[in-house]
Amino acid sequence: MALTPEQQREIEAERNEQRMTRRVVSAGIEEILFRALPVLDHGFVRVIDYMGDDGAIVQSARVSYGRGTKKVREDQGLINYLMRHRHSTPFEMCEIKYHVKLPIFVARQWIRHRTANVNEYSARYSILDNEFYLPAREQLAAQSESNRQGRGDVLSDHDAARVLTLLREDAEQSYRHYQELLNVGEDGAELDGDREGLARELARMNLSLNFYTQWYWKIDLHNLLHFLSLRADPHAQYEIRAYADVMLETVKAWVPLAFNAFQEFRLGAVTLSAGALKVVQRMLAGEAVDQGSSGMSKREWTELMAALGRAE
Amino acid sequence: MALTPEQQREIEAERNEQRMTRRVVSAGIEEILFRALPVLDHGFVRVIDYMGDDGAIVQSARVSYGRGTKKVREDQGLINYLMRHRHSTPFEMCEIKYHVKLPIFVARQWIRHRTANVNEYSARYSILDNEFYLPAREQLAAQSESNRQGRGDVLSDHDAARVLTLLREDAEQSYRHYQELLNVGEDGAELDGDREGLARELARMNLSLNFYTQWYWKIDLHNLLHFLSLRADPHAQYEIRAYADVMLETVKAWVPLAFNAFQEFRLGAVTLSAGALKVVQRMLAGEAVDQGSSGMSKREWTELMAALGRAE
Amino acid sequence: MALTPEQQREIEAERNEQRMTRRVVSAGIEEILFRALPVLDHGFVRVIDYMGDDGAIVQSARVSYGRGTKKVREDQGLINYLMRHRHSTPFEMCEIKYHVKLPIFVARQWIRHRTANVNEYSARYSILDNEFYLPAREQLAAQSESNRQGRGDVLSDHDAARVLTLLREDAEQSYRHYQELLNVGEDGAELDGDREGLARELARMNLSLNFYTQWYWKIDLHNLLHFLSLRADPHAQYEIRAYADVMLETVKAWVPLAFNAFQEFRLGAVTLSAGALKVVQRMLAGEAVDQGSSGMSKREWTELMAALGRAE
Amino acid sequence: MALTPEQQREIEAERNEQRMTRRVVSAGIEEILFRALPVLDHGFVRVIDYMGDDGAIVQSARVSYGRGTKKVREDQGLINYLMRHRHSTPFEMCEIKYHVKLPIFVARQWIRHRTANVNEYSARYSILDNEFYLPAREQLAAQSESNRQGRGDVLSDHDAARVLTLLREDAEQSYRHYQELLNVGEDGAELDGDREGLARELARMNLSLNFYTQWYWKIDLHNLLHFLSLRADPHAQYEIRAYADVMLETVKAWVPLAFNAFQEFRLGAVTLSAGALKVVQRMLAGEAVDQGSSGMSKREWTELMAALGRAE
Repeated sequence: MALTPEQQREIEAERNEQRMTRRVVSAGIEEILFRALPVLDHGFVRVIDYMGDDGAIVQSARVSYGRGTKKVREDQGLINYLMRHRHSTPFEMCEIKYHVKLPIFVARQWIRHRTANVNEYSARYSILDNEFYLPAREQLAAQSESNRQGRGDVLSDHDAARVLTLLREDAEQSYRHYQELLNVGEDGAELDGDREGLARELARMNLSLNFYTQWYWKIDLHNLLHFLSLRADPHAQYEIRAYADVMLETVKAWVPLAFNAFQEFRLGAVTLSAGALKVVQRMLAGEAVDQGSSGMSKREWTELMAALGRAE
Repeated sequence: MALTPEQQREIEAERNEQRMTRRVVSAGIEEILFRALPVLDHGFVRVIDYMGDDGAIVQSARVSYGRGTKKVREDQGLINYLMRHRHSTPFEMCEIKYHVKLPIFVARQWIRHRTANVNEYSARYSILDNEFYLPAREQLAAQSESNRQGRGDVLSDHDAARVLTLLREDAEQSYRHYQELLNVGEDGAELDGDREGLARELARMNLSLNFYTQWYWKIDLHNLLHFLSLRADPHAQYEIRAYADVMLETVKAWVPLAFNAFQEFRLGAVTLSAGALKVVQRMLAGEAVDQGSSGMSKREWTELMAALGRAE
Repeated sequence: MALTPEQQREIEAERNEQRMTRRVVSAGIEEILFRALPVLDHGFVRVIDYMGDDGAIVQSARVSYGRGTKKVREDQGLINYLMRHRHSTPFEMCEIKYHVKLPIFVARQWIRHRTANVNEYSARYSILDNEFYLPAREQLAAQSESNRQGRGDVLSDHDAARVLTLLREDAEQSYRHYQELLNVGEDGAELDGDREGLARELARMNLSLNFYTQWYWKIDLHNLLHFLSLRADPHAQYEIRAYADVMLETVKAWVPLAFNAFQEFRLGAVTLSAGALKVVQRMLAGEAVDQGSSGMSKREWTELMAALGRAE
Repeated sequence: MALTPEQQREIEAERNEQRMTRRVVSAGIEEILFRALPVLDHGFVRVIDYMGDDGAIVQSARVSYGRGTKKVREDQGLINYLMRHRHSTPFEMCEIKYHVKLPIFVARQWIRHRTANVNEYSARYSILDNEFYLPAREQLAAQSESNRQGRGDVLSDHDAARVLTLLREDAEQSYRHYQELLNVGEDGAELDGDREGLARELARMNLSLNFYTQWYWKIDLHNLLHFLSLRADPHAQYEIRAYADVMLETVKAWVPLAFNAFQEFRLGAVTLSAGALKVVQRMLAGEAVDQGSSGMSKREWTELMAALGRAE
């Protein structure tokens, strides 16, 4: 990620300005406010605003006139209770706004989460920067054989080199041609005074899906946690997971009690199907159960054994 | 509205505590933060948190790294442009949270707006207060003859007195019986040591729709303005309009530039149907048009003439 | 539930009319289409339209040009996979529309589910029927001592009789006064020619929360299953659970494969928190664990033991 | 658009199969069900399912037990009333499902409409077809000088030829390299037995934004009309407008009365701001108003004169 000096100055200027407010303040998130937290090769996540803190969850659950908080221990207990019993509305009372820079193919997965507000940089209106994503060497993996939508073994050095060359050269050429279509150079000046540039809304179609875009993305805590539970999951594509992992840290800084509850009752939790529950009950009763006698499919059995931490 | 002394102390305690923040601050809304703004006989609206200000709309439209604002004149121009061309996403970048006390029948209309977060005081969990809505004398109107869902003339003194007596006596009795069902007195003590109280989730069904409930309600500015354009409208029932009118004032204090644009392009605007547009064009061309020659229904014609400020 | 003869005729007329369509048809749901399935004392659930069937889920997951289905066994396997891995979008491809008659206090819980379309009978526009909910004798329970928002023991005969008398008499009186306020009798005729009736939008506030309302409610299958998982749950209030139970039957008739998957991976499933998972792992390893050594709270421990089917 | 013979057979097979149903049927939409209606060079829109018809809007507004329809004239009147007074819920009672093939940059605009269900062809799971969008000759326009996000004059033949060459060659190369990255040929066979293909979820990033994707998209009528009012608008980018125009035809076939109302009160309507309304009032009173004396900005004045059909 390379912020321009001007962007860095703008960010520092925002960080240095402090104001008085009557609103609740979360000290942890104030600490990182506006900072560009790097993700992938050119991306970032910046928290640019927030509303509420752990106390706001508690206050809302108690529909109180004042702050509504009690001792930390009691607040944690109440938040655990709410998380455990899937009370979603108190968590909706906190809101956060991010500025995110991300490859277009990641943005396409991300936008599927509809319960959020988004304002994207418009390539109809402006010219996209010459920044595209190239996977790190260790991320270049073959198609998985067992999972139709995942990655398998890391590519050999020879194959990886070829992949990176193709991706880089195509992206570079596609951006050069994007500029030629627009008839605009790096410095914003016309390339050729004798012709007109193609409309921006058309020229952009020549860019590939690894180019970076950026947006403001605003969401309440309940829906953010749902997003993170899906996107910080090992089944999610690595590139969006990289964003989810950084955002988990921002949640921890912002609402540490809610983060604890989220770890205990979501991220670290396991759901047993009706069939899996019966298997566990039989095993606890001392019965030796194997896949054949479990009534479960091979895949479900493997997943259950992994969840229970048992070598098969 | 009668806040208890304890509630007033809680509110004052919140108002007196100021903290430092790096976030943007709206001076106008800080001024009224936490205050209970009275509505109807026992209701109120309290702003209890907010995110963003006019600058946040502008910043988001420009997807900037810093504050993104320019001169007020230019910011107003940009906000007007966004409002006029129905760009909704920049307005979604601001968020506000209210604490509202309102009659249940108003809550039932209000909740129809789905794009909001709400946490209501639970009558499964707690006991509702002995507060119910009685319309002011001048609000007691007969069924409208022309509008199947509106009010007509104000009732005579005699009829109004009878209405108020019925409403008051039934509400008082229904609350007395609610307490008897619960087996709980005003002071929270058991009424009769020899019997068990009915579960709260059942006893509440005896209360009538004019009893007050309360909730935390959180919404983004775009959806709030949509809500207000429908509920501050003369076609809305008076009781919910009373809330919308107070909330309009909070919007004006919070985001004055957006409020100006909202007045100019929504509240004060008029939509002409294809047929109405043709009529206006003919009139501007000097033609004398009346309802018969307008091709419009009587009702549409009347509405058009009213909108154009022309006596019929 | 007492449908009027006219309503019954209308329903039968609809059921008797069959038409040709190119759309997919679910034989099971056609069987019950339009029928009023009774719930509580005067309520009902009627399926009045639907879109899609099990095949539509499969077709959408495969983004096919044709029906996209294979053998039932394979379709069930795919649907199980989708349910297990929380792929929600294929289930959103089916839609169902209900006509529901329900007490207002149930409607107030129900409407909290925002991802649905609803059109409610308007008491601003029309006069509500004289129908109110009275709990069945065995549903009259005391406030739970252990659960702040639940029911405990069933009331004694003596206490129950008093409760029913209060509820019935108050509801009857409130409806009589509703009519007096409106100045309208059972037959729709004016009661007193010398005075004007109060506007319907005001008079309704005198009715209590156990009066019945009705609405059309339309939702996609994914969100319906989410609704049912919360409302068919033992923690839900009995009265809304009664509706959820009947609706589960309609889902079974409509999309039997999705219903199977829902039972296996949601209704019959159990989620173990990170702490509970560790306890199960220790028990499977042969360790004797009790609440003291589990690191869990008493309540969580009791719930875990119940889920595992172990007497404590 | 080139459907494969197999796809055409699947579509014809679906069209030829008719079934009996008790549901309401819209004859107009049955006529075009499943047909691929061509859009742009390789795209299409196919209606693949629907729920409800004009009568369902009327039935819902009347919350009736039967069909609820009256004479067409009365139904049209009621639907006009609902549209005019922005009653959205009755229109939400109809639902439609499309299968759409569209360029990725169009999909990125389209997905911004959040109140819809979507299931997209997964390029993590499957390999995208070798089909990309090339604008028709007359669509190749220069950047607009007056509108920062629009098109201006059509390009000269010479410039247009260069644009098309660049777009075509880059797309062809990017697809060739996509196949090389995947190590898969046109026929699905491995290209090089000595190396492993890159995971599909990574290889796709080399494709440009004019490649076609496809999805199932399901939405209720109210939200569809909102989508169409924005996307069939002259301010929308031509490429998405081409889809909106075809979809307008499907709405007309499906719910002709609602379509009439939509044309009269939305598509053909004009909204006058508070300021514009004052100008019209002054003009109707016989005053000669020009931009200078109007109090409006130049741009708003021009738009108002255009709306009123007056040469400036």
